[in-house]
Amino acid sequence: MNKKLSLLLFSGDYDKALVALILANTAAEADMDVSIFFAFWGLFILRDPDKISNDDKTTMEKMFGAMTPKGPEELPLSHMNFSGLGKKMLEAMMSDNEAPTLENFLNGVVKKGVKLYGCKLSVDIMGFKKEELLPQLEIIEAKDYLKDAASSDIQLFI
Amino acid sequence: MNKKLSLLLFSGDYDKALVALILANTAAEADMDVSIFFAFWGLFILRDPDKISNDDKTTMEKMFGAMTPKGPEELPLSHMNFSGLGKKMLEAMMSDNEAPTLENFLNGVVKKGVKLYGCKLSVDIMGFKKEELLPQLEIIEAKDYLKDAASSDIQLFI
Amino acid sequence: MNKKLSLLLFSGDYDKALVALILANTAAEADMDVSIFFAFWGLFILRDPDKISNDDKTTMEKMFGAMTPKGPEELPLSHMNFSGLGKKMLEAMMSDNEAPTLENFLNGVVKKGVKLYGCKLSVDIMGFKKEELLPQLEIIEAKDYLKDAASSDIQLFI
Repeated sequence: MNKKLSLLLFSGDYDKALVALILANTAAEADMDVSIFFAFWGLFILRDPDKISNDDKTTMEKMFGAMTPKGPEELPLSHMNFSGLGKKMLEAMMSDNEAPTLENFLNGVVKKGVKLYGCKLSVDIMGFKKEELLPQLEIIEAKDYLKDAASSDIQLFI
Repeated sequence: MNKKLSLLLFSGDYDKALVALILANTAAEADMDVSIFFAFWGLFILRDPDKISNDDKTTMEKMFGAMTPKGPEELPLSHMNFSGLGKKMLEAMMSDNEAPTLENFLNGVVKKGVKLYGCKLSVDIMGFKKEELLPQLEIIEAKDYLKDAASSDIQLFI
Repeated sequence: MNKKLSLLLFSGDYDKALVALILANTAAEADMDVSIFFAFWGLFILRDPDKISNDDKTTMEKMFGAMTPKGPEELPLSHMNFSGLGKKMLEAMMSDNEAPTLENFLNGVVKKGVKLYGCKLSVDIMGFKKEELLPQLEIIEAKDYLKDAASSDIQLFI
């Protein structure tokens, strides 16, 4: 039976999203079953900047949506961000090493059939609509995440 | 046999404490055995603001105790804190969605019998006295945490 | 058979490195098999400040190397760093309690035979040379980490 990897991506940092997606891609290539549960700030990477809508949102939800990162390119670094300079350096160094970008890795997990789950409570609180997020995302509850994680060989909170 | 969840709460951030307590409550409701090991900054959420005492503390411990969050309400956000504005927005959005507060979730784990462990080394270094912390907390060593975690189906470091 | 602990140290924070090394030392003392996979910022703790070299590095790699922490003593705190003041307080409080330093704990894992792995992709992107890092470090790929983690009883992402 295949080994199984369960990731909970809570962080909205560029580098933490990167490591989560690198692990997910690598595990899927090694024939592991992989699922990622996106919660809280982890949902920002799944926002499609072209589909953001303010319909049916409270004023607070609109403000929050405007102040927070819209999609993978707007995420900051967890360390050494220096108002974006550290991130530009990291991106340049990744490019020098011909490493794929965060978006490449996100496309990779979609193509490889990694299961992508979004946390219902987080989506409700932040006021995100399903149409604003990656279409492959399935919204589930925390108890469903726990069930999936308990049957996995590796669980990481990122 | 019941599945078992082991959380190590290291962070002193409001949102990370929230996700730890939501997972713990959800798991306990699903009849999982749950334990939380509070270490370092994770202990701040367990401080009772009405029971803080400076007896038998070094000057450094007093200063450290005064500069750090006293109980669940004073914890900052890990992202987008904006000197507290981001946190107020998040709390308002949680309230709009009738989500319980951090304190509700903390009361929930106590009522549901989640095992609450505090890291002895952290308590000693930070100079916290047992009477200043949540009464249900049991102080244990890192080796006891590892034994408990090794027998769990899910382990997360938050 | 011995229980097995697998840590992924991603963070470059002093306190998170400290908790990772405390857990690793404690587990090794309790006869667990222990491995640590150092990725991204987690590699900074393994830099030897006396062996930093700029040979064969791009301008970007030199700048990045100069701007980032060089060895265990230069890591900041994840919370309450206050430009280094919070860290000095924590170090003083650890010393008051006769707790070992971060360097002591690093020496401890080396002596106890904890397996120390470095992430190849991170080393390549950051432009670190093997000679600049702790000699006991073995450079491996993410898929090797996943294999090791999947056979462990506890996996934590720190």
